[in-house]
Amino acid sequence: MKLTRRYRFSASHRLHAPALPDADNIRIYGKCNNPFGHGHDYVMEVVVRGPVDGVTGLVVDMRSMDDLVRCEVVDAFDHKNLNTDVPEFGRTVPTSENLAVAAGRRLRNAWKERFGDVPALEKIRIHETRRNIFELLL
Amino acid sequence: MKLTRRYRFSASHRLHAPALPDADNIRIYGKCNNPFGHGHDYVMEVVVRGPVDGVTGLVVDMRSMDDLVRCEVVDAFDHKNLNTDVPEFGRTVPTSENLAVAAGRRLRNAWKERFGDVPALEKIRIHETRRNIFELLL
Amino acid sequence: MKLTRRYRFSASHRLHAPALPDADNIRIYGKCNNPFGHGHDYVMEVVVRGPVDGVTGLVVDMRSMDDLVRCEVVDAFDHKNLNTDVPEFGRTVPTSENLAVAAGRRLRNAWKERFGDVPALEKIRIHETRRNIFELLL
Amino acid sequence: MKLTRRYRFSASHRLHAPALPDADNIRIYGKCNNPFGHGHDYVMEVVVRGPVDGVTGLVVDMRSMDDLVRCEVVDAFDHKNLNTDVPEFGRTVPTSENLAVAAGRRLRNAWKERFGDVPALEKIRIHETRRNIFELLL
Amino acid sequence: MKLTRRYRFSASHRLHAPALPDADNIRIYGKCNNPFGHGHDYVMEVVVRGPVDGVTGLVVDMRSMDDLVRCEVVDAFDHKNLNTDVPEFGRTVPTSENLAVAAGRRLRNAWKERFGDVPALEKIRIHETRRNIFELLL
Amino acid sequence: MKLTRRYRFSASHRLHAPALPDADNIRIYGKCNNPFGHGHDYVMEVVVRGPVDGVTGLVVDMRSMDDLVRCEVVDAFDHKNLNTDVPEFGRTVPTSENLAVAAGRRLRNAWKERFGDVPALEKIRIHETRRNIFELLL
Repeated sequence: MKLTRRYRFSASHRLHAPALPDADNIRIYGKCNNPFGHGHDYVMEVVVRGPVDGVTGLVVDMRSMDDLVRCEVVDAFDHKNLNTDVPEFGRTVPTSENLAVAAGRRLRNAWKERFGDVPALEKIRIHETRRNIFELLL
Repeated sequence: MKLTRRYRFSASHRLHAPALPDADNIRIYGKCNNPFGHGHDYVMEVVVRGPVDGVTGLVVDMRSMDDLVRCEVVDAFDHKNLNTDVPEFGRTVPTSENLAVAAGRRLRNAWKERFGDVPALEKIRIHETRRNIFELLL
Repeated sequence: MKLTRRYRFSASHRLHAPALPDADNIRIYGKCNNPFGHGHDYVMEVVVRGPVDGVTGLVVDMRSMDDLVRCEVVDAFDHKNLNTDVPEFGRTVPTSENLAVAAGRRLRNAWKERFGDVPALEKIRIHETRRNIFELLL
Repeated sequence: MKLTRRYRFSASHRLHAPALPDADNIRIYGKCNNPFGHGHDYVMEVVVRGPVDGVTGLVVDMRSMDDLVRCEVVDAFDHKNLNTDVPEFGRTVPTSENLAVAAGRRLRNAWKERFGDVPALEKIRIHETRRNIFELLL
Repeated sequence: MKLTRRYRFSASHRLHAPALPDADNIRIYGKCNNPFGHGHDYVMEVVVRGPVDGVTGLVVDMRSMDDLVRCEVVDAFDHKNLNTDVPEFGRTVPTSENLAVAAGRRLRNAWKERFGDVPALEKIRIHETRRNIFELLL
Repeated sequence: MKLTRRYRFSASHRLHAPALPDADNIRIYGKCNNPFGHGHDYVMEVVVRGPVDGVTGLVVDMRSMDDLVRCEVVDAFDHKNLNTDVPEFGRTVPTSENLAVAAGRRLRNAWKERFGDVPALEKIRIHETRRNIFELLL
């Protein structure tokens, strides 16, 4: 049995690769390279997989899961400027791809410690907008 | 080729594990343990997989599929109280996990009899709310 | 300036008018007359109207509004059986029309006391499902 | 006949009223007062009203309407930091209320010049998130 | 109390004003002037207004309303080519504006006969796509 | 890392298998066999898979991807009558299954030429309506 649970956070970012000249940054990121940044309402889906408990009928204790996901990711990203407020993006461009990598790394470590392997943390998905969805196996 | 088809049903339930003391039931299920129950508008997705027929251009005859899914699952759950109206939940807690197990069992047997292995019934998904989605391979 | 703010609650109900014979109840309410009830995920929209504050740029203090709406309506209806858990439906059929009337009455009184006439509480809308929306001027 | 047409733009902002002490800003705007800002995917609905042209069957030439709305509002707000990139928010807090006021003022002037009174520009709505919708009569 | 109820139909159309030269048709309707037509999944909202019945708790008998709307509009438009299958569009361009006018005329007459003035038929809305919504007072 | 990107197109079609007698066509396709056709607003999701570039933080250059998908598929299907305007459906029934096959074939060839194997084109999904989704591995 797999459970997909959805979380939301709003954040701003600016896409700019410091290793590249300005002209390349403009060509690659277009409007997303605007110097003062812009923002999105992100949706993050966390997928876990495990057996259904015979007594409770549940795959995971959802309150523990919510505590973990909020504490590790949502509170760190929500209503934040990703470039300045989140340490992972000091030198890394905060594209949704890298956002998924950073969120995945934070979740994986905390999940192992709290839940072990059952249920297993399977993947996360970041919906940047309705049109772009990024998925990372964990 | 895979086809995912969506069905909807509205039902009420109360989450209460008779094997556990009341304090545990309240701790585990929270508001869902309310004695008189509450309700949801469920979405069920049924995923089938098979080749495209060379003449009709179809993977499955959708009217037969609808008849089967409605007769086996939707009519049995829609506008019902899961705890009292659905035999599977006499002793089993009607969580969405167990709802998926019950719906999957009903579909698998009927599907085999009606369609055999082509197209194959691959999985079902129960959307409890927009935030929680349960998936079961069949 | 008008602000529409959305709230959600899940509840179960049974539609049955005690003043009518059973045959009429079945004819009028169809599946919704099922004796053990069924449920929905309701959306309630609360519409308020007022001037924009020159200093804060806000029409209403949203935290106060949320406290009031949650306390008066959401907490009273969410994860409840409307027929047995909500006093207004002891003798009144819990249709979405009557749900809007009950929610409106609860909000109107509390709103007057807390906010007076500015901003004004203008109307509420109950989305029973995606297909049916009920609106009441307050 | 009324036509409602939807536009989207993504922007970042920080809610901070310079006339108020920091403690009040934090109390009033909460997480939205975060110093480095955050962002949203806004939806703007523009409502126009007029007779249906007997020959073309249209209320408004949609290409002219799109050009006007994009040029006056969408291009000015999309992928921008509202506080630093939009002149109206030099001293005014970029709440969605003030965003609606600014967008409405920009549209009203340009609309009068381009279309006159037929069709009439009736109102705009700013959807800040799925939960908060702001409406302004023009 | 107002009730908004949603109906759906899929239809194809071609936008071409026979009174205008081809160049104007292309300029005005763009891709919608394609000679062999294209299609949409329309949503039609019907808004009625009336008192809540003291016994049933309902504004309108929904089954009668559905029968009327389906019979008068949905069955006539659904899975049809509006230009060739619907008499109103023999000489009138099937824009969504004219679709709303045609649907409104059909509903108004039938509603008066079946329901009289209580509940009153207030307006209809045609959602052509997510971006364009047409509203007509009846 | 997988990226799913959404595209939309509106088209009309008629489902009719020339190899079958009329009675069978009516039985199999129902209203979709209507002689003058009808239409839908299709959503096509294109899924690609590849590593995240260490400098740009991107899986694929989205502008190149959009150019390719628009040029190969969207422009060929959008605002078109699939039966008469798209060569693949001269003799093949334009069901969504066959639409996915045709779109997949167009994309696969062009993708190989433009991007090679990194990122890889993994699958496409055609959403015919909200209820039916077709998925094809490429």
